[in-house]
Amino acid sequence: MSYDVTVIGSGPGGYIAAIRAAQLGFKTAIIEKEDNLGGVCLNWGCIPTKSLLRVSEIYRLIKRSEEFGIKVQGVSFDIKSIIEYSRNVVNKLSSGVEYLMQKNNITVHRGCAKLAGNHNIKVADNDEILSEHIIIATGVRARNLPGIKVDGHLVWNAQHAMIPDKLPKSLLIIGSGAIGIEFASFYNALNVDVTIVEIKDTILPLEDKEISILAQEIFTKQGITIHTNNSIKNLIQKKDSVEVQFSNDKIIEFDRVIVAVGVHPNTDNIGLEHTKIKLSSLGFIETNKWYETHEANTYAIGDVAGPPCLAHKASHEAVICIEKIANKAPHHLQRECIPNCIYSYPQIASIGLTEEQAKTAGHDIKIGRSYANFNGKSIALGETEGLVKTIIDRKSGEILGAHMIGAEVTELINSFALVKQLEGTDLDIKSTIFPHPTVSEMIHESTLAAIIKMT
Amino acid sequence: MSYDVTVIGSGPGGYIAAIRAAQLGFKTAIIEKEDNLGGVCLNWGCIPTKSLLRVSEIYRLIKRSEEFGIKVQGVSFDIKSIIEYSRNVVNKLSSGVEYLMQKNNITVHRGCAKLAGNHNIKVADNDEILSEHIIIATGVRARNLPGIKVDGHLVWNAQHAMIPDKLPKSLLIIGSGAIGIEFASFYNALNVDVTIVEIKDTILPLEDKEISILAQEIFTKQGITIHTNNSIKNLIQKKDSVEVQFSNDKIIEFDRVIVAVGVHPNTDNIGLEHTKIKLSSLGFIETNKWYETHEANTYAIGDVAGPPCLAHKASHEAVICIEKIANKAPHHLQRECIPNCIYSYPQIASIGLTEEQAKTAGHDIKIGRSYANFNGKSIALGETEGLVKTIIDRKSGEILGAHMIGAEVTELINSFALVKQLEGTDLDIKSTIFPHPTVSEMIHESTLAAIIKMT
Repeated sequence: MSYDVTVIGSGPGGYIAAIRAAQLGFKTAIIEKEDNLGGVCLNWGCIPTKSLLRVSEIYRLIKRSEEFGIKVQGVSFDIKSIIEYSRNVVNKLSSGVEYLMQKNNITVHRGCAKLAGNHNIKVADNDEILSEHIIIATGVRARNLPGIKVDGHLVWNAQHAMIPDKLPKSLLIIGSGAIGIEFASFYNALNVDVTIVEIKDTILPLEDKEISILAQEIFTKQGITIHTNNSIKNLIQKKDSVEVQFSNDKIIEFDRVIVAVGVHPNTDNIGLEHTKIKLSSLGFIETNKWYETHEANTYAIGDVAGPPCLAHKASHEAVICIEKIANKAPHHLQRECIPNCIYSYPQIASIGLTEEQAKTAGHDIKIGRSYANFNGKSIALGETEGLVKTIIDRKSGEILGAHMIGAEVTELINSFALVKQLEGTDLDIKSTIFPHPTVSEMIHESTLAAIIKMT
Repeated sequence: MSYDVTVIGSGPGGYIAAIRAAQLGFKTAIIEKEDNLGGVCLNWGCIPTKSLLRVSEIYRLIKRSEEFGIKVQGVSFDIKSIIEYSRNVVNKLSSGVEYLMQKNNITVHRGCAKLAGNHNIKVADNDEILSEHIIIATGVRARNLPGIKVDGHLVWNAQHAMIPDKLPKSLLIIGSGAIGIEFASFYNALNVDVTIVEIKDTILPLEDKEISILAQEIFTKQGITIHTNNSIKNLIQKKDSVEVQFSNDKIIEFDRVIVAVGVHPNTDNIGLEHTKIKLSSLGFIETNKWYETHEANTYAIGDVAGPPCLAHKASHEAVICIEKIANKAPHHLQRECIPNCIYSYPQIASIGLTEEQAKTAGHDIKIGRSYANFNGKSIALGETEGLVKTIIDRKSGEILGAHMIGAEVTELINSFALVKQLEGTDLDIKSTIFPHPTVSEMIHESTLAAIIKMT
């Protein structure tokens, strides 16, 4: 079989690359080693976690229903049915990707792909594919910690944590990035006793410090135990529990443990040795800004090409990569225009520079803040914990960064992505009419606060 | 007493005008005839309805909880407690406005204001105020229909509908604008048998026809009865019910009736006869683009200065009006940049031209559509009914209009407001990275669909 474009991996990088290639007239194939198309994001990442978090949101609201004048006599849940809900969402979307492949005449090959050099790929040690362009979109997998065996029974990775047999009474989450924090919110809502351990001095170490600290306060109020500046010294897997010794020598027993300490690129066993492809010191595939590797006509996009490991970054790179191949003169991806979302309760979203980064970069900044407990819609929703923080270059008015915590913020951060893409300033946001009453008014208020107070 | 700026009316036009005036160093007063500050929007409009609709959203979710793996044994509600929730939200925000007045050193005068000519205002037929600038922000009130007596018992206006003594079994809503549709959603959720009558051929006659038709289908599926091309011929208020004869001569009995057929400007009894102020044919105060009336140093903003009667339009006009007085060279308000939100279930939001308007205006357009049942976040939320429709000028790529129905859309329309304000094109939206998985991706998808299909 021979193709113009062959994509290895059908995650949000790969399947978007395949669709865009097909749209632009290339004869296109995609190779997937798993049964379901869609990659980790769709099958074991963004989508199932968001489904689980939706259930926990509803369960939280039911527990609070009396505040709203609603009486519920007895509420219970069945973890199997909750998981079933999330798996049904996954299956619906995975079939959707399957349908899109058919609709766009993209050939799907099942099996492990191995680059064989000279435009060749072997699939499942069997089929041979000849392809003018090869796009590697093999993604990443969960990173393990030395000395901790992820057995799927007592010690879970994210995938195990999405499909528990039964709920643990107590749960330790190692790592407080997006994945760790989302599971903390989910299990906390379902009345599990959740502890987070983070080696850095705040949780969510990639976020603006003010947001991280506020998040930590809110999570602690919700009953989540948080240990920062702390890590695991020793971990003993007993029969039905785990004994954990922390770096401060404290020993605590937990029912289950989730390891959520980052990712490792999937570059092994894909035949890189038959190419000139180079890896970075962290093991990601090196590319230029058009996603070309050191091997001719071979490209890498998405997580395997380096962080931030985000589905929308992968999809965006896919489009740029294909349009460049098609000589469509695409724009470059601007790293500071990639939004980031965490679907915890409350939600967290951000884009661009943190306050610290902006200062380190030498910007003279002004900062605006808007708090949810002054926002009409947030009060009406009964969700009064939240902050929108806008970091603005004092001279140019450029929006350097925006950092949000609170209700709906994952649906609001795109506004700042648009402003940054359009090179809008604080005054442009000031002149924009935001509808009332919405949480989105906090974008306006936060920016106005920076303009008026010049903090 | 004498002031630099005096504002009549403390709604979202008035109180924002007062704050901006105070911020810019003017000695400022505000006059309010009601006990609570905040105007109709805060006390009897946007805010209490959003609170009620939040309760109905939660109640709907509880009724659906089994879909999500949650079991609820007995669910009931107490309409008094629901109303209490909404009134508490109102009181919190009204105190907030009171606090902002104090904080900004704005003097609050209570009582009816009457212009007395020559920079003078009488308050409560008593106090006399001398003010260099006078801003009229007296708003609008519900319009009545000839032959229908709004008695607050059997026949309600919006205010009555927010604080019912008890729930009716059946309810007729006359008019299917934002207010009528929001009450339909609220009462339908609480199991009231709701009927809507609309004189035009679709509900929501101001919205894009495709959205109106889709909304009508969804509302009908929810059990709301909708009569379009129909109106009230006769209405007889009986002892505890209302007998309604429709224009097609059908007679139906309803427990209660809501009249939601638009508004009437509050221009009576405010002493306009002592000024040169002119009214438009519909009774709104005539102004130029800086909100100057025909009387020197006297301005009108917000609903009383003409439609669209929206809080955020009023607030925006307030800022422009004050900044012009202060010679701050503000921008003009662009009517096509005013977003509109309806907080029904599902939500509806729009900005700019409808498809029909764009065609009538002679634009060569392309249209993009994105449906919620292909959107990962919407599926995860369990909210798969929705559409984002983007209307784009084919030559320039200008976003002429955007029309949305579905989950979260009231928090998404600000994105299009920003793009329009920044004069962004379809290609700018294409180049923007929208976070995955979010409903906001439908903004991206809808625009991409227009670019790729060139429909």
